[in-house]
Amino acid sequence: MAEKPSKGLADVVAASTALSDIDGLAGRLFYRGYDIDELAGTATFEETAYLLQRGSPASHGELAGYRGEIAAGRTLGKLVSTSLPEIARSQQPMEALRSLVSLASADDPDVDSNEPGPNTRKAARLTAQQPVLVAAYDAARRGRESAPADPEAGLAANFLLQITGTPPSERETRILDTCLVLHADHTMNASTFAARVCAATLSDMHSAVVAALGTLKGPLHGGANEQVMRGLAEIRNSGGSDPAAAAVTQVLARLRQGQKIMGFGHRVYRAEDPRTAHLREISAELAAASGDDTYYRMSRKMEEVVFAEKGLYPNVDFYAATVYHYLRIPTDLFTSVFSVSRMAGWTSHVMEQHADNRLIRPDSEYIGDRGRTWTPLDQR
Amino acid sequence: MAEKPSKGLADVVAASTALSDIDGLAGRLFYRGYDIDELAGTATFEETAYLLQRGSPASHGELAGYRGEIAAGRTLGKLVSTSLPEIARSQQPMEALRSLVSLASADDPDVDSNEPGPNTRKAARLTAQQPVLVAAYDAARRGRESAPADPEAGLAANFLLQITGTPPSERETRILDTCLVLHADHTMNASTFAARVCAATLSDMHSAVVAALGTLKGPLHGGANEQVMRGLAEIRNSGGSDPAAAAVTQVLARLRQGQKIMGFGHRVYRAEDPRTAHLREISAELAAASGDDTYYRMSRKMEEVVFAEKGLYPNVDFYAATVYHYLRIPTDLFTSVFSVSRMAGWTSHVMEQHADNRLIRPDSEYIGDRGRTWTPLDQR
Repeated sequence: MAEKPSKGLADVVAASTALSDIDGLAGRLFYRGYDIDELAGTATFEETAYLLQRGSPASHGELAGYRGEIAAGRTLGKLVSTSLPEIARSQQPMEALRSLVSLASADDPDVDSNEPGPNTRKAARLTAQQPVLVAAYDAARRGRESAPADPEAGLAANFLLQITGTPPSERETRILDTCLVLHADHTMNASTFAARVCAATLSDMHSAVVAALGTLKGPLHGGANEQVMRGLAEIRNSGGSDPAAAAVTQVLARLRQGQKIMGFGHRVYRAEDPRTAHLREISAELAAASGDDTYYRMSRKMEEVVFAEKGLYPNVDFYAATVYHYLRIPTDLFTSVFSVSRMAGWTSHVMEQHADNRLIRPDSEYIGDRGRTWTPLDQR
Repeated sequence: MAEKPSKGLADVVAASTALSDIDGLAGRLFYRGYDIDELAGTATFEETAYLLQRGSPASHGELAGYRGEIAAGRTLGKLVSTSLPEIARSQQPMEALRSLVSLASADDPDVDSNEPGPNTRKAARLTAQQPVLVAAYDAARRGRESAPADPEAGLAANFLLQITGTPPSERETRILDTCLVLHADHTMNASTFAARVCAATLSDMHSAVVAALGTLKGPLHGGANEQVMRGLAEIRNSGGSDPAAAAVTQVLARLRQGQKIMGFGHRVYRAEDPRTAHLREISAELAAASGDDTYYRMSRKMEEVVFAEKGLYPNVDFYAATVYHYLRIPTDLFTSVFSVSRMAGWTSHVMEQHADNRLIRPDSEYIGDRGRTWTPLDQR
């Protein structure tokens, strides 16, 4: 008979995966056996997506082929293109992406198959399409078109080009690549788990990714990076002469009231999230280069005080916020940028689920009334 | 530390709920403590949706108010209306519903709130909207408009009116009400679980329902009723003089090859699914009334042989297929009709999740390579 596990399935093994592995005690994260500390800064996002989706590091030739698929996948389908202007006028970014990816299945020639070949092609197309959707949405809501794609540019460079309108520096491209590598997969996080629950009914990859996008949207998941940035901006804009001190004061006040500090703590890590060190370092570099390191200094102070008071480490969302800010990405697109990266993981998990499937159908514990007798309305 | 449970979370308690309860050994199903055997045939779908969403049976006045909300909720939003023709031309029914419900959030005034009041209103609107979307989609793909809604008609009657173009008989309405009541909720089924995983990030009700729709689409879940009907039609259309005997022959052949028979077996029930008896009886009645009981006779024979060979009972999908067929619903809309009903359950589970939330974030077991060393591309 079923037993009651801890709420929220904490510590319950829901699936086997060969995609990523977390050592929560040591604070380490691996993609297919490679430590992300080795991948960050040395692998591009395409190399990482290829590794996750296809199982092994790409050779030079394989990578050229994959980059070709990514470049080809930037062309938006007819249903998406015709729907985009109206959607951009009336939906928030993550709602819009949920709608647009759902619509995109209409123009995918492999939509009806869950077989390895079609799934692999769909995974590349969805990965290619996501940054283009984000940039096209942002442009459309501002009443313009996004910059034309550069067929020679990799995914990170082309995204920065399309979202900011100007070609990025090599260093900016490398930094965004690192961010995308760090966010690409993370075992059984909520959006990935939603994708697997969906795929396990033998539903298709687009359905699973749409489920994941709606799940990532939540402020307890992908939505957190936007909340971190909004919190920083709010404190700074409240006008005090020392924003870092004001941040400390606010954190202490929130902790005294038992409130959660966005961007801190993680269910799986007992040590520091290994992604944080990379993002903190990048944030420091970009802050210095920008000539205004206020947000970075505020973040450092908050980190110190939350650790001193609660022993909690910043998670991946905390320094991602300032990094995206310094890269001139609008705050309300931070979660969308997260989705650009996590698409690599979601699509890989869908393929893994389809390859060795069993329906994910848990039990529940009934806690309501029992033995009630129904009286039809006409007898009441 | 995490332990490995059975694959697919079978028998793992993933959540507590006061909405529905299954007694798998006795073959009984309860909504908020009421046996569905009492509800089927005596409660309308609106009464059942109200019971699930708001906790208690509606009084006469409350039901009138709820029916008013349902009638008002039939008006489609601007983004949905403008997008519908192109979607109907290019997406299959469940893909289209996934897209349309995602788009519908644009015109919901409560979209940004997960509080009980807004959630309750959204639940009624989503419940009202779903049958209208199905009928409008079906009409649009045939290049026409669906029949105008009848503001006096209940949900079942109005749906039959809009989907068939002719006002249904009282008996037909009562039969569809019974079907919708029987499908309204079913503890932690895959689509409901996907909705709760999504909602548990504090994402919104539309996102959760979109995740559920994509999950219901799968042939191991809601997609099964369409597969049952296609299987029956295929055998019948193969032209033998005795379709019931042909069905038996095919079932035996499939069982010998170790193949699954669609519409049989359920992870939770050890006795007959309590919904089956109602649907079998309705199917018999409609078959007799139609003057052609071939599909019903085929189903009965298949049921006998699967039970004799494997001890498996038909599940909710098996007789739902012929019932929807006799109600003149196109086969490729059967899963969509399922979604019309299950919307009551999904929305109720989202509210329950939001009311006492914890992130649903399980663990995974890593089964891939370990300790690989990354060689940057330019050093390979």
